[in-house]
Amino acid sequence: MGKDNFKRYIRSIPDFPRKGILFRDITTLLKRPKIFKKAVDILSHRYVGKKIDRVVSVEARGFIFGSVLAYKLNAGFVPVRKKGKLPAETLELTYSLEYGEDTLTIHKDALKKGERVLIVDDLLATGGTIKAVSELVERLGGKIIECVFLIELTSLRGRERLGKYPVFSLIKY
Amino acid sequence: MGKDNFKRYIRSIPDFPRKGILFRDITTLLKRPKIFKKAVDILSHRYVGKKIDRVVSVEARGFIFGSVLAYKLNAGFVPVRKKGKLPAETLELTYSLEYGEDTLTIHKDALKKGERVLIVDDLLATGGTIKAVSELVERLGGKIIECVFLIELTSLRGRERLGKYPVFSLIKY
Repeated sequence: MGKDNFKRYIRSIPDFPRKGILFRDITTLLKRPKIFKKAVDILSHRYVGKKIDRVVSVEARGFIFGSVLAYKLNAGFVPVRKKGKLPAETLELTYSLEYGEDTLTIHKDALKKGERVLIVDDLLATGGTIKAVSELVERLGGKIIECVFLIELTSLRGRERLGKYPVFSLIKY
Repeated sequence: MGKDNFKRYIRSIPDFPRKGILFRDITTLLKRPKIFKKAVDILSHRYVGKKIDRVVSVEARGFIFGSVLAYKLNAGFVPVRKKGKLPAETLELTYSLEYGEDTLTIHKDALKKGERVLIVDDLLATGGTIKAVSELVERLGGKIIECVFLIELTSLRGRERLGKYPVFSLIKY
Protein backbone atom coordinates (compact mmCIF):
# COMPACT_ATOMS: atom_id res chain seq x y z
CA MET A 1 0.00 0.00 0.00
CA GLY A 2 1.35 3.41 -0.93
CA LYS A 3 1.62 5.97 1.83
CA ASP A 4 -1.06 8.16 0.29
CA ASN A 5 -3.58 5.38 0.52
CA PHE A 6 -3.58 5.68 4.30
CA LYS A 7 -5.59 8.87 3.82
CA ARG A 8 -8.53 6.77 2.70
CA TYR A 9 -8.80 5.52 6.27
CA ILE A 10 -8.59 8.89 8.01
CA ARG A 11 -11.95 10.57 8.57
CA SER A 12 -12.03 14.37 8.28
CA ILE A 13 -14.57 16.11 10.49
CA PRO A 14 -15.27 19.81 10.02
CA ASP A 15 -15.59 22.22 12.95
CA PHE A 16 -14.25 19.90 15.64
CA PRO A 17 -13.35 20.57 18.40
CA ARG A 18 -14.40 24.09 17.38
CA LYS A 19 -15.52 26.04 14.35
CA GLY A 20 -12.95 26.32 11.60
CA ILE A 21 -10.91 23.25 12.59
CA LEU A 22 -10.89 20.27 10.22
CA PHE A 23 -10.25 17.37 12.59
CA ARG A 24 -8.33 14.36 11.29
CA ASP A 25 -9.92 11.36 13.00
CA ILE A 26 -7.65 8.30 13.22
CA THR A 27 -10.22 5.99 14.86
CA THR A 28 -11.34 4.85 11.41
CA LEU A 29 -7.77 3.71 10.71
CA LEU A 30 -7.21 2.14 14.14
CA LYS A 31 -10.26 -0.08 13.93
CA ARG A 32 -9.04 -1.72 10.69
CA PRO A 33 -6.55 -4.42 11.73
CA LYS A 34 -4.57 -4.58 8.50
CA ILE A 35 -4.29 -0.82 8.09
CA PHE A 36 -3.36 -0.25 11.73
CA LYS A 37 -0.76 -3.02 11.50
CA LYS A 38 0.66 -1.64 8.26
CA ALA A 39 1.02 1.84 9.75
CA VAL A 40 2.76 0.47 12.86
CA ASP A 41 5.08 -1.70 10.77
CA ILE A 42 6.16 1.17 8.48
CA LEU A 43 6.78 3.51 11.42
CA SER A 44 8.66 0.96 13.50
CA HIS A 45 10.71 -0.42 10.59
CA ARG A 46 12.35 2.98 10.19
CA TYR A 47 13.99 2.63 13.64
CA VAL A 48 15.12 -0.99 13.56
CA GLY A 49 18.83 -1.03 14.35
CA LYS A 50 18.73 2.54 15.67
CA LYS A 51 19.14 1.34 19.25
CA ILE A 52 16.13 3.16 20.65
CA ASP A 53 16.17 2.81 24.46
CA ARG A 54 12.92 4.60 25.28
CA VAL A 55 9.80 5.66 23.44
CA VAL A 56 8.24 8.76 25.01
CA SER A 57 4.60 9.68 24.30
CA VAL A 58 2.09 12.12 25.67
CA GLU A 59 -1.42 11.21 26.78
CA ALA A 60 -3.89 10.17 25.59
CA ARG A 61 -3.74 9.48 21.83
CA GLY A 62 0.05 9.46 21.82
CA PHE A 63 0.00 6.30 23.91
CA ILE A 64 -1.70 4.37 21.09
CA PHE A 65 1.25 4.41 18.69
CA GLY A 66 3.86 4.98 21.40
CA SER A 67 3.34 1.73 23.26
CA VAL A 68 3.22 -0.46 20.19
CA LEU A 69 6.35 1.16 18.74
CA ALA A 70 8.13 0.63 22.07
CA TYR A 71 7.12 -3.03 21.96
CA LYS A 72 8.25 -3.49 18.36
CA LEU A 73 11.59 -1.77 18.96
CA ASN A 74 12.37 -3.59 22.23
CA ALA A 75 12.40 -0.23 23.94
CA GLY A 76 10.91 0.91 27.22
CA PHE A 77 7.76 3.04 27.17
CA VAL A 78 7.64 6.37 29.03
CA PRO A 79 4.36 8.27 29.45
CA VAL A 80 4.26 12.06 29.64
CA ARG A 81 1.08 13.15 31.40
CA LYS A 82 -0.91 16.15 32.54
CA LYS A 83 -0.05 17.46 35.97
CA GLY A 84 -1.31 15.38 38.90
CA LYS A 85 -1.47 12.08 37.04
CA LEU A 86 2.00 10.61 37.59
CA PRO A 87 2.41 9.34 41.15
CA ALA A 88 6.18 9.60 41.81
CA GLU A 89 8.60 12.52 41.67
CA THR A 90 8.17 14.46 38.42
CA LEU A 91 9.77 17.14 36.35
CA GLU A 92 7.14 19.53 35.03
CA LEU A 93 6.91 22.13 32.29
CA THR A 94 4.22 24.70 31.62
CA TYR A 95 3.81 25.78 28.01
CA SER A 96 1.53 28.06 26.01
CA LEU A 97 -1.39 26.81 23.96
CA GLU A 98 -3.42 28.75 21.44
CA TYR A 99 -5.82 29.47 24.29
CA GLY A 100 -4.22 29.49 27.75
CA GLU A 101 -1.53 27.08 28.91
CA ASP A 102 -0.98 23.53 30.00
CA THR A 103 1.46 21.65 32.21
CA LEU A 104 3.10 18.36 31.27
CA THR A 105 5.02 16.07 33.62
CA ILE A 106 7.46 13.17 33.35
CA HIS A 107 8.81 10.93 36.10
CA LYS A 108 12.33 11.98 37.06
CA ASP A 109 13.47 8.36 36.94
CA ALA A 110 11.89 7.70 33.52
CA LEU A 111 15.15 8.20 31.63
CA LYS A 112 18.83 7.88 32.32
CA LYS A 113 21.39 10.30 30.91
CA GLY A 114 22.39 9.43 27.37
CA GLU A 115 19.47 7.12 26.66
CA ARG A 116 18.31 7.21 23.06
CA VAL A 117 14.74 8.45 22.81
CA LEU A 118 12.09 8.28 20.09
CA ILE A 119 9.23 10.73 20.66
CA VAL A 120 5.95 9.42 19.22
CA ASP A 121 2.61 11.14 18.73
CA ASP A 122 -0.39 10.64 16.51
CA LEU A 123 -0.45 14.11 14.96
CA LEU A 124 1.94 17.02 14.45
CA ALA A 125 0.12 20.35 14.30
CA THR A 126 1.92 23.48 15.58
CA GLY A 127 4.36 21.30 17.52
CA GLY A 128 3.85 23.09 20.85
CA THR A 129 3.11 19.96 22.85
CA ILE A 130 5.96 17.94 21.38
CA LYS A 131 8.36 20.86 21.89
CA ALA A 132 7.44 20.71 25.59
CA VAL A 133 7.93 16.93 25.63
CA SER A 134 11.33 17.31 23.99
CA GLU A 135 12.41 19.81 26.65
CA LEU A 136 11.41 17.42 29.42
CA VAL A 137 13.37 14.62 27.73
CA GLU A 138 16.45 16.80 27.36
CA ARG A 139 16.34 18.02 30.95
CA LEU A 140 16.55 14.36 31.99
CA GLY A 141 19.56 13.90 29.72
CA GLY A 142 17.81 11.89 27.01
CA LYS A 143 19.15 12.03 23.45
CA ILE A 144 16.28 12.58 21.00
CA ILE A 145 16.83 10.49 17.87
CA GLU A 146 13.66 11.56 16.06
CA CYS A 147 10.07 12.74 16.53
CA VAL A 148 7.63 10.51 14.66
CA PHE A 149 3.99 11.12 13.84
CA LEU A 150 1.25 9.25 12.05
CA ILE A 151 -0.08 12.54 10.60
CA GLU A 152 1.53 15.91 9.93
CA LEU A 153 -0.47 19.06 9.19
CA THR A 154 2.27 20.70 7.15
CA SER A 155 0.69 24.16 6.90
CA LEU A 156 1.03 24.60 10.66
CA ARG A 157 4.82 24.30 10.43
CA GLY A 158 5.35 22.13 13.48
CA ARG A 159 8.40 20.69 11.76
CA GLU A 160 10.08 24.11 11.85
CA ARG A 161 9.26 24.55 15.50
CA LEU A 162 10.93 21.21 16.24
CA GLY A 163 13.84 22.31 14.03
CA LYS A 164 16.50 20.91 16.34
CA TYR A 165 15.31 17.34 15.79
CA PRO A 166 14.63 15.11 12.82
CA VAL A 167 10.90 14.69 12.17
CA PHE A 168 9.17 11.89 10.29
CA SER A 169 5.48 11.53 9.47
CA LEU A 170 3.58 8.88 7.54
CA ILE A 171 0.63 10.94 6.30
CA LYS A 172 0.88 14.59 5.29
CA TYR A 173 -1.93 17.09 4.81
CA MET B 1 9.80 -15.43 34.72
CA GLY B 2 7.01 -16.46 37.08
CA LYS B 3 3.97 -14.24 37.22
CA ASP B 4 4.72 -13.13 40.78
CA ASN B 5 8.04 -11.71 39.71
CA PHE B 6 6.26 -8.97 37.79
CA LYS B 7 5.50 -7.41 41.17
CA ARG B 8 9.16 -6.53 41.53
CA TYR B 9 8.69 -4.01 38.73
CA ILE B 10 5.53 -2.37 40.06
CA ARG B 11 6.15 0.60 42.33
CA SER B 12 3.73 1.08 45.23
CA ILE B 13 3.14 4.68 46.28
CA PRO B 14 1.23 5.41 49.49
CA ASP B 15 -1.44 8.12 49.67
CA PHE B 16 -1.79 8.74 45.92
CA PRO B 17 -3.93 10.22 44.48
CA ARG B 18 -5.30 10.77 48.01
CA LYS B 19 -4.69 9.68 51.58
CA GLY B 20 -5.27 6.01 52.26
CA ILE B 21 -4.80 4.83 48.66
CA LEU B 22 -1.79 2.65 47.85
CA PHE B 23 -1.18 3.42 44.18
CA ARG B 24 0.28 0.68 41.98
CA ASP B 25 2.55 2.48 39.53
CA ILE B 26 3.20 0.58 36.30
CA THR B 27 5.63 3.12 34.80
CA THR B 28 8.52 1.25 36.40
CA LEU B 29 7.45 -1.87 34.49
CA LEU B 30 6.76 -0.07 31.20
CA LYS B 31 10.21 1.48 31.01
CA ARG B 32 11.94 -1.91 31.16
CA PRO B 33 11.85 -3.33 27.63
CA LYS B 34 12.11 -7.01 28.53
CA ILE B 35 9.56 -6.87 31.31
CA PHE B 36 7.08 -4.82 29.26
CA LYS B 37 7.52 -7.23 26.35
CA LYS B 38 7.08 -10.27 28.56
CA ALA B 39 3.86 -8.87 30.04
CA VAL B 40 2.46 -8.08 26.58
CA ASP B 41 3.42 -11.51 25.27
CA ILE B 42 1.77 -13.39 28.13
CA LEU B 43 -1.42 -11.35 27.88
CA SER B 44 -1.68 -11.58 24.10
CA HIS B 45 -0.74 -15.28 23.93
CA ARG B 46 -3.88 -16.10 25.88
CA TYR B 47 -6.06 -14.85 22.99
CA VAL B 48 -4.23 -16.26 19.99
CA GLY B 49 -6.76 -18.24 17.96
CA LYS B 50 -9.69 -16.66 19.80
CA LYS B 51 -10.61 -14.58 16.75
CA ILE B 52 -10.65 -11.23 18.51
CA ASP B 53 -12.02 -8.60 16.09
CA ARG B 54 -11.62 -5.51 18.25
CA VAL B 55 -9.70 -4.50 21.36
CA VAL B 56 -11.55 -1.82 23.31
CA SER B 57 -9.69 0.32 25.88
CA VAL B 58 -10.43 3.41 27.91
CA GLU B 59 -8.16 6.45 28.08
CA ALA B 60 -5.48 7.11 29.04
CA ARG B 61 -3.53 4.23 30.61
CA GLY B 62 -5.79 1.63 29.04
CA PHE B 63 -4.47 2.64 25.62
CA ILE B 64 -0.96 1.46 26.55
CA PHE B 65 -1.75 -2.25 26.71
CA GLY B 66 -4.83 -2.02 24.51
CA SER B 67 -3.09 -0.88 21.35
CA VAL B 68 -0.23 -3.34 21.58
CA LEU B 69 -2.62 -6.25 22.25
CA ALA B 70 -4.70 -5.18 19.24
CA TYR B 71 -1.55 -5.16 17.13
CA LYS B 72 -0.40 -8.57 18.36
CA LEU B 73 -3.84 -10.15 17.85
CA ASN B 74 -4.42 -8.66 14.38
CA ALA B 75 -7.45 -6.90 15.79
CA GLY B 76 -8.71 -3.36 15.37
CA PHE B 77 -8.26 -0.90 18.22
CA VAL B 78 -11.22 1.06 19.58
CA PRO B 79 -10.73 3.90 22.07
CA VAL B 80 -13.35 4.75 24.69
CA ARG B 81 -12.92 8.35 25.80
CA LYS B 82 -14.25 11.01 28.11
CA LYS B 83 -17.10 13.08 26.76
CA GLY B 84 -16.15 15.66 24.14
CA LYS B 85 -13.01 13.91 22.92
CA LEU B 86 -14.33 11.70 20.10
CA PRO B 87 -15.19 13.74 17.00
CA ALA B 88 -17.89 11.67 15.25
CA GLU B 89 -21.28 10.41 16.40
CA THR B 90 -21.00 8.71 19.80
CA LEU B 91 -22.94 6.58 22.21
CA GLU B 92 -22.44 7.83 25.77
CA LEU B 93 -22.93 6.46 29.25
CA THR B 94 -22.78 8.26 32.58
CA TYR B 95 -21.78 6.15 35.57
CA SER B 96 -21.14 6.67 39.27
CA LEU B 97 -17.69 7.01 40.76
CA GLU B 98 -16.74 6.92 44.41
CA TYR B 99 -16.98 10.71 44.31
CA GLY B 100 -19.39 12.08 41.70
CA GLU B 101 -19.86 10.67 38.21
CA ASP B 102 -18.20 10.48 34.83
CA THR B 103 -19.29 10.06 31.21
CA LEU B 104 -17.64 7.72 28.73
CA THR B 105 -18.20 7.71 24.98
CA ILE B 106 -17.57 5.37 22.05
CA HIS B 107 -18.00 6.03 18.34
CA LYS B 108 -21.22 4.48 17.07
CA ASP B 109 -19.38 3.02 14.09
CA ALA B 110 -16.56 1.56 16.22
CA LEU B 111 -18.07 -1.93 16.29
CA LYS B 112 -20.36 -4.01 14.15
CA LYS B 113 -22.95 -6.36 15.59
CA GLY B 114 -21.48 -9.71 16.55
CA GLU B 115 -17.85 -8.59 16.53
CA ARG B 116 -15.71 -10.35 19.11
CA VAL B 117 -14.30 -7.88 21.63
CA LEU B 118 -11.48 -8.03 24.13
CA ILE B 119 -11.67 -5.26 26.76
CA VAL B 120 -8.21 -4.26 28.00
CA ASP B 121 -7.18 -2.05 30.91
CA ASP B 122 -4.11 -1.67 33.06
CA LEU B 123 -5.81 -2.14 36.42
CA LEU B 124 -9.02 -3.66 37.79
CA ALA B 125 -10.14 -1.97 41.01
CA THR B 126 -13.89 -1.76 41.76
CA GLY B 127 -14.68 -2.41 38.09
CA GLY B 128 -16.98 0.60 37.69
CA THR B 129 -15.23 2.00 34.64
CA ILE B 130 -14.94 -1.33 32.84
CA LYS B 131 -18.58 -2.12 33.64
CA ALA B 132 -19.49 1.10 31.82
CA VAL B 133 -17.21 0.18 28.91
CA SER B 134 -18.82 -3.25 28.68
CA GLU B 135 -22.27 -1.68 28.51
CA LEU B 136 -21.19 0.57 25.64
CA VAL B 137 -19.76 -2.43 23.80
CA GLU B 138 -22.94 -4.45 24.28
CA ARG B 139 -25.18 -1.61 23.15
CA LEU B 140 -23.26 -1.62 19.87
CA GLY B 141 -23.81 -5.37 19.59
CA GLY B 142 -20.25 -6.44 20.41
CA LYS B 143 -19.66 -9.85 21.97
CA ILE B 144 -17.30 -9.54 24.94
CA ILE B 145 -14.89 -12.48 25.00
CA GLU B 146 -12.97 -11.43 28.11
CA CYS B 147 -11.83 -8.45 30.17
CA VAL B 148 -8.06 -8.48 30.66
CA PHE B 149 -5.95 -6.45 33.09
CA LEU B 150 -2.29 -6.18 33.91
CA ILE B 151 -3.15 -5.75 37.61
CA GLU B 152 -6.13 -6.78 39.73
CA LEU B 153 -6.78 -5.42 43.22
CA THR B 154 -8.69 -8.48 44.41
CA SER B 155 -10.00 -7.00 47.67
CA LEU B 156 -12.08 -4.47 45.70
CA ARG B 157 -14.04 -7.30 44.04
CA GLY B 158 -14.16 -5.84 40.55
CA ARG B 159 -14.28 -9.39 39.23
CA GLU B 160 -17.65 -9.92 40.91
CA ARG B 161 -18.98 -6.67 39.49
CA LEU B 162 -18.02 -7.84 36.02
CA GLY B 163 -19.58 -11.23 36.84
CA LYS B 164 -21.19 -11.62 33.42
CA TYR B 165 -17.80 -11.78 31.69
CA PRO B 166 -14.63 -13.80 32.07
CA VAL B 167 -11.83 -11.79 33.69
CA PHE B 168 -8.10 -12.40 33.46
CA SER B 169 -5.31 -10.53 35.22
CA LEU B 170 -1.56 -11.03 35.23
CA ILE B 171 -0.68 -9.56 38.63
CA LYS B 172 -2.91 -9.85 41.69
CA TYR B 173 -2.74 -7.86 44.92
